[in-house]
Amino acid sequence: MNASVAGVQLGVAQAGIKKVGRDDLVVIALAPGTCTAALFTRNAFRAAPVQIAEANLATVEAQPRYLMINTGNANAGTGEAGIQSASECCDTLARLTETEATAVLPFSTGVIGEPLSADLISAALPGALDNLCDTGWERAAGAILTTDTRAKLRSVEVELDSQCCTITGIAKGAGMICPKMATMLAFVATDAAIDVALINSFLKSAVSASFNRITVDGDTSTNDAVTLSATGQSGIEITAGSEHAEHFAQALTTLMIELAQDIVRDGEGASKFVEIRVTGGESEAACDQVARTVAHSPLVKTALFASDPNWGRILAAIGRAGLEDLDTDAVSIHLNGVLIAEQGARAASYTEEKGKEAMASEDLLIEIALNRGDAGAVIWTTDLSYDYVRINAEYRT
Amino acid sequence: MNASVAGVQLGVAQAGIKKVGRDDLVVIALAPGTCTAALFTRNAFRAAPVQIAEANLATVEAQPRYLMINTGNANAGTGEAGIQSASECCDTLARLTETEATAVLPFSTGVIGEPLSADLISAALPGALDNLCDTGWERAAGAILTTDTRAKLRSVEVELDSQCCTITGIAKGAGMICPKMATMLAFVATDAAIDVALINSFLKSAVSASFNRITVDGDTSTNDAVTLSATGQSGIEITAGSEHAEHFAQALTTLMIELAQDIVRDGEGASKFVEIRVTGGESEAACDQVARTVAHSPLVKTALFASDPNWGRILAAIGRAGLEDLDTDAVSIHLNGVLIAEQGARAASYTEEKGKEAMASEDLLIEIALNRGDAGAVIWTTDLSYDYVRINAEYRT
Repeated sequence: MNASVAGVQLGVAQAGIKKVGRDDLVVIALAPGTCTAALFTRNAFRAAPVQIAEANLATVEAQPRYLMINTGNANAGTGEAGIQSASECCDTLARLTETEATAVLPFSTGVIGEPLSADLISAALPGALDNLCDTGWERAAGAILTTDTRAKLRSVEVELDSQCCTITGIAKGAGMICPKMATMLAFVATDAAIDVALINSFLKSAVSASFNRITVDGDTSTNDAVTLSATGQSGIEITAGSEHAEHFAQALTTLMIELAQDIVRDGEGASKFVEIRVTGGESEAACDQVARTVAHSPLVKTALFASDPNWGRILAAIGRAGLEDLDTDAVSIHLNGVLIAEQGARAASYTEEKGKEAMASEDLLIEIALNRGDAGAVIWTTDLSYDYVRINAEYRT
Repeated sequence: MNASVAGVQLGVAQAGIKKVGRDDLVVIALAPGTCTAALFTRNAFRAAPVQIAEANLATVEAQPRYLMINTGNANAGTGEAGIQSASECCDTLARLTETEATAVLPFSTGVIGEPLSADLISAALPGALDNLCDTGWERAAGAILTTDTRAKLRSVEVELDSQCCTITGIAKGAGMICPKMATMLAFVATDAAIDVALINSFLKSAVSASFNRITVDGDTSTNDAVTLSATGQSGIEITAGSEHAEHFAQALTTLMIELAQDIVRDGEGASKFVEIRVTGGESEAACDQVARTVAHSPLVKTALFASDPNWGRILAAIGRAGLEDLDTDAVSIHLNGVLIAEQGARAASYTEEKGKEAMASEDLLIEIALNRGDAGAVIWTTDLSYDYVRINAEYRT
């Protein structure tokens, strides 16, 4: 895939942060004039790099020159020492590239609560700078992973009249995935020209339709961050309210949904990809609440893992989702198109065979109709398997 | 244990509801004049027996004569047919005992969404009535279990001046445990005399300090119910506002906490018993929210299973609990007395060895000090193990 975005170069190195001999450090260099927007986790315990990245982004007025990402250590729950370590890494990169330290946005992912060695990263930075190239997306996509089993890289060409611009993004996920603002880590870039206000609005709306709609385990990370950078080097300018803006926003949202779904499909221990679609609610928030309650239910998740059409657990989860005066008789549930429950009971047309056949699929669509309003919401999630327990019981060892 | 309560007789039978050859039907006969209070699930999908028991209790003005409990089938998500089935069982028991059907409170536990055969239960009721006896508590405690591995029976003698009354209770739990009002099923009786208003107040306050403070998997059941019956046959009368009332309430709460903790210790796949104690919050609700967020975090639960002092996950869960303007530097975390985190980072005095030693214990106390107020809350919970997944992936097979 030619994922290159004019004005964006990526370099990778092996800093030996958690393991030796694996790519664990990425530098993304953005050409002068690139405009960047970012969204960060809403977890109250925000990692040191999140705090610094947000402050730096404000200082350089959306014009950072370098994104610096390490895996193997989240630099979260590390107090003042963590802030110092992240600052030191920014300082080193700034010195090596003759920029201001505030032009560097740092990102970290990995274990929480361990001190991050600035020395290891500083020592590896020259190597990452040495191999900066515009074809580095694929290697960078691999280098930011933790318990992920595969890289997440998506790229699209957007045709606007006779011209073309590119949007490319990489992401990592796997566990502690229930983004409130953005997901674990995702970096998206385009060669279109977009100003600060517009790029922030693009990012916010695309994230709310993509990363904020996925959950693996309900655990919102301390390090969630997603960035969107526009280099402008395609020569295409996108202005607010234009038809181009609409097309671009659509393409961006689609790409982010793909990345978000890639994260769910590669969720820790995941054997199913599940879309939960709630309709007929009084508000989007109410539908979202029902969808998330079903998505987070360990009983629903283990039934999904077993390919067991145990729809009673879905029904019980809907019932505890906290909707006021829910008319349970009005609720109906479809599983991959098969009507399984209505009027508070198993559908007359339902047979265990139909249910088993629907559940056997790796991709599942659970449709919940509340029949009390016009709003809807979608959540993408996974099952809960032995492997989820294994991965998270063994993660630090 | 002599758990007998004068005025209460228990009978057990094998109705073959899910498996043949196991006790699965219990009848509890209450002497005339017994006053009963009950609390039921807040899940919007309330099982048929819950709906009928609540209506009957209101009809007979807290004077039911029989509690009828079946395991193996929850009779939930069964619509109108489920209501009919539960009513038919009540009718049969009423006919056999020459009482009104409204004097029977039905309870069910087991699989959701399967039709419950009234015929099987009706056929087995005479057998249960035949062996009614006041020493039937232990056998009844065994007969109400589902995926539980051991019976939960607690009894206490309460000395009030020179007289004595007894409180005895049985409970079942294991999975779908996050009671909002009461737990899966618990039946408690005393030979003290207590009027309707007082017995309801006793039950409400004891349940809020016991069953409503436990969670295994965050899934609130469709069938939660707890009853408290006072036969008055000890000759001891307990009146509101008296010193006796205070002593009795204390003994009752202690017994219910023991039963609730028994449920947690026998939670599906549980290898740890965990008390999460949050202090220094602005309100009990805020502390409860933090405690539950930690208790429900799959990442915290799998770390507990692994005996891994991965406190970063506890910190991340606190951070996503939704407290406004949480000062993360003010938060401290102790694990079985060992200070593990303070000022947003690992405590200086902490060592991995101390953490591992603390985590090795089967009983864990996680203390979270928020240092922003005077309120507190406690939640009892378990870990998330391979066995939880196995039990719930295989439950219907």
